[in-house]
Amino acid sequence: MTDLVELAKRRGFFFQSSEAYGGVSGFYVYGPQGAALKRNIEDSWRDRFQIQEGHREIEAPTVMPEPVFEASGHLDGFDDMLVECPECGESHRADHLIEDNTDIEDAEALPLDEVGDLIADNDLRCPNCDTPLAGEPVEDFNLMFSTDIGPGSGHPGYLRPETAQGIFVEFPRLKEYARNQLPFGITQIGPAYRNEISPRRSIIRVREFTQAELEQFIDPETDEPPLHLVEDVEVTLYSAPAQHDADGEYLHTTIGEAVDEGIIGSDWVAYYLGVGQEWYERIGVDMDRFRFRQHLSGERAHYASDCWDAEAEIDGDWIEISGYSYRSDYDLSNHGEHSDEDFTVFRQYDEPKVVERAVVEPDMSYLGPEFGGAAADIAEALQTLAERDRTAFDGDDVTVEADGESYTVPVEKTGFSVEEVKESGEHITPHVVEPSIGVGRVLYTVLDHAYETDEVEGETRTRLSLDSEIAPTTVGVFPLMDKDGMGEKAHEIATELRTNGLDVTYDESGNIGRRYRRQDEVGTPFCVTVDYEGVEDDTVTLRERDSTEQVRVDIADLPDLLSSLKDGDISFEDLASTPLRNR
Amino acid sequence: MTDLVELAKRRGFFFQSSEAYGGVSGFYVYGPQGAALKRNIEDSWRDRFQIQEGHREIEAPTVMPEPVFEASGHLDGFDDMLVECPECGESHRADHLIEDNTDIEDAEALPLDEVGDLIADNDLRCPNCDTPLAGEPVEDFNLMFSTDIGPGSGHPGYLRPETAQGIFVEFPRLKEYARNQLPFGITQIGPAYRNEISPRRSIIRVREFTQAELEQFIDPETDEPPLHLVEDVEVTLYSAPAQHDADGEYLHTTIGEAVDEGIIGSDWVAYYLGVGQEWYERIGVDMDRFRFRQHLSGERAHYASDCWDAEAEIDGDWIEISGYSYRSDYDLSNHGEHSDEDFTVFRQYDEPKVVERAVVEPDMSYLGPEFGGAAADIAEALQTLAERDRTAFDGDDVTVEADGESYTVPVEKTGFSVEEVKESGEHITPHVVEPSIGVGRVLYTVLDHAYETDEVEGETRTRLSLDSEIAPTTVGVFPLMDKDGMGEKAHEIATELRTNGLDVTYDESGNIGRRYRRQDEVGTPFCVTVDYEGVEDDTVTLRERDSTEQVRVDIADLPDLLSSLKDGDISFEDLASTPLRNR
Repeated sequence: MTDLVELAKRRGFFFQSSEAYGGVSGFYVYGPQGAALKRNIEDSWRDRFQIQEGHREIEAPTVMPEPVFEASGHLDGFDDMLVECPECGESHRADHLIEDNTDIEDAEALPLDEVGDLIADNDLRCPNCDTPLAGEPVEDFNLMFSTDIGPGSGHPGYLRPETAQGIFVEFPRLKEYARNQLPFGITQIGPAYRNEISPRRSIIRVREFTQAELEQFIDPETDEPPLHLVEDVEVTLYSAPAQHDADGEYLHTTIGEAVDEGIIGSDWVAYYLGVGQEWYERIGVDMDRFRFRQHLSGERAHYASDCWDAEAEIDGDWIEISGYSYRSDYDLSNHGEHSDEDFTVFRQYDEPKVVERAVVEPDMSYLGPEFGGAAADIAEALQTLAERDRTAFDGDDVTVEADGESYTVPVEKTGFSVEEVKESGEHITPHVVEPSIGVGRVLYTVLDHAYETDEVEGETRTRLSLDSEIAPTTVGVFPLMDKDGMGEKAHEIATELRTNGLDVTYDESGNIGRRYRRQDEVGTPFCVTVDYEGVEDDTVTLRERDSTEQVRVDIADLPDLLSSLKDGDISFEDLASTPLRNR
Repeated sequence: MTDLVELAKRRGFFFQSSEAYGGVSGFYVYGPQGAALKRNIEDSWRDRFQIQEGHREIEAPTVMPEPVFEASGHLDGFDDMLVECPECGESHRADHLIEDNTDIEDAEALPLDEVGDLIADNDLRCPNCDTPLAGEPVEDFNLMFSTDIGPGSGHPGYLRPETAQGIFVEFPRLKEYARNQLPFGITQIGPAYRNEISPRRSIIRVREFTQAELEQFIDPETDEPPLHLVEDVEVTLYSAPAQHDADGEYLHTTIGEAVDEGIIGSDWVAYYLGVGQEWYERIGVDMDRFRFRQHLSGERAHYASDCWDAEAEIDGDWIEISGYSYRSDYDLSNHGEHSDEDFTVFRQYDEPKVVERAVVEPDMSYLGPEFGGAAADIAEALQTLAERDRTAFDGDDVTVEADGESYTVPVEKTGFSVEEVKESGEHITPHVVEPSIGVGRVLYTVLDHAYETDEVEGETRTRLSLDSEIAPTTVGVFPLMDKDGMGEKAHEIATELRTNGLDVTYDESGNIGRRYRRQDEVGTPFCVTVDYEGVEDDTVTLRERDSTEQVRVDIADLPDLLSSLKDGDISFEDLASTPLRNR
């Protein structure tokens, strides 16, 4: 980890922010290399999870008002356990202290008082100053950053803890854009925030991070995913039962088999696990250090009814890099209840159904004089009762509650009847399936899995074997020396390649070996060098990063050749084995 | 404005966020059309201001710690004037009340007490409940959203009020990536925040917005922009003197002439005004409703020594859509002073210079016994004085201040001498030139200037004549009807065009005229329709949005044809005048 983090800082992938002022834990800057890599990963995700799936993207604000998080459950339930050192004042995550110092693995699931007891029983101490923490209060700390919208404190707002809520809360409008037809999917890529008590592990656990989320809205009774498209995709699964079993093992299977055998409960979750598997492989995650792990029941978020994490192995630990949740109707139902808007869609029946419906038509000329101001409320209560329990109207009188009082009304005055009505459909609350990707964690994984050292010309070289689709730079262009026309020619080539949409770095400083090494270290897959021969006959050498092999190619062929190499349409090996004039 | 805002909401460009909970002023969501348009504008900006200029992009956090804004001046100086209604409690911008109700145009520049007097003198009232505001305190309200980082209130943080500070504060590392060579430029596109007292005008004045900023770091003495590249660019300038003059008029000139005549003071600002002018035109800003306006001296931000705004006319008002500032060394100097990091770069001399340097080597065996604990401070004060004014050492004694006391020391005890030293260069603080684009405002302008109504087939049609580079969708693909193979063929075409990187909308619902109208309304420049004839001979009709003209083209030619039309390499008119088989 140290080597990679050092490389990331030195070469501009990422580094802690505001270091001039001592730095702030949990906030990182993506430098020029990192920002380009991150954008490429986001574009690749957008291509796979959005464009190819026919979904659509929105961009919602990062600051949202309090009622959203009352409804979503984050205001009450999005907490970590905090214990503060009485001596140095530093705050610690109580569950982490326990996990780090005892055999307990999932302390987060324990009640607060039990955590307090465990701290005392194990004589746990402040990691900062070694003061005993026994007896110190263990409290819930809400992980949302709060702020005030406008002057004064009357309008609290929060930095969104997940991009998802920015989609859910706009569902009433988004369904209109989808012409009220399920299924449809909405994506969003953007910042999300968690005010972690103890940020750690570089960009793995940070306070501000980028999520790429897809909210797939479905009718749970009728909508099916195109499972056949991914049924043969091979996956490594670590199911909940296997985790509970001391001898539990990974299951190497296919998406189709895992569904048939009931290992993955939801077809929709299974579909997106298949899509995800292909995507992680495409961007260069090492499939020998990758698995899908099912959440244990105590571990699931407050909304999820089934959840699998994509996990990558980094330095011997398994890190969650994405979550695949079946959120059911949890979010839309909650927003429907907490607001006055309609978070349902209308499900049309294949043909209209005739249904019986109980109605009342109370005699207001009786109710008015008899009950005065309560008459209207009584009429409403009668209608509600008729819909719920029509047997209540079987006798002579019917009794309802209105404004906390009981009222008895003769049935003949209620105008009770049962009608037959035709209904063309019904309102349903869609269910939600959510692939949620942590972009920073995926980026870290890709870098870690691409980090290699080997020996070239007797020297140790560090290289990032990044996939050409996401590498920050596709091609480095160098003149052998900046003289005798080589510099001009190299500049021309760089401009031409940029015009063709390639990411190009021009470099003329230092000896050529050092320039290759610089590009190896930031993962540039190809380098082009203009030498004396090339100025004569309009050719260059084209070098591949991992093999360090070189071939001579015509300058005129470069744009097409590099685009094909980048897209994987041709391989460098094929190119190297074809004579120059036969290409 | 109303028509456009209504269209934006109905068709998914933008709308107020969290409307299910009553909405929150100043926070907007970009829907599917708006998010696509926004991304295209950002990509176009990135291409012009970053890639073509050889600059590099970073991504810094949106939450930053307090010391950054102590140094930048935002903590003290980033205020609006607030007056609160004693009756309804609503807060108002005092300067806006004055500007809206008197002839005063720039109330923001007035001192607080004068603003209070003007409110009383003009009997200004609460716009909400008509209560008189005379005598109510007018106070500064800081426009940064504040929050707490981690548990407790010991680490205040702020949502950045401009993306720029995320670049400046990282300068010590960024200069390393540039190998300590000026000039270099760093860009960033991302959210910025201002806790406006009165957000207004849809997405024009909002609390969360996207900035695209370039910070160009230069050596002010030696670095020159490539002004020749833009010297012939024609611009409309509204200079400060013209604004002061009652008869002041716009100047229609070129960048080159404006520099020669001293109208634009900085060559670098002039260069980027030229670059900007070309870019606004390229993305479809109406050049008859566009101008560059120079800031008046009272209006400039606390950091800017010269500033021009790009302004667009919307509904008769001029709206700032971008700023071009010469920020000099303001930000880097401040961060250098407030932190322990080095915010300078080393400027190498062409050849080493021999310079005289005054040094002291005080006789501490005299100073110590004579001055006790003050001796070290006196020695330091002597060195400082020697560097500043060596004539002070001409006499027998020299007097310095240390710790607020005066001390007199015999010159012979100071060890004063003048040495000759060779210096290879010097440390300078770079100056900064900043083009800063408000992405939402540019987006609004582009929509407003593209919004048109005309008559087609006897009906009024609304269309957005968006440039094809930024239109959310490049091509709509329709089967005339979804039968007899037309649907299948249209699906195939849509997939093929998507694979070629084009933004495609497939639509089969409603009559064909209605489908054209839907695409016209979201600015889709081209539509392809598969009809009976096309199923037979593999052709389609290709329709252009603004002219509504149609030509028949081969399906096989579509990908190249549409890419060329999108990039402007061919025009639809040329295509229409060329017979099918000769293309």
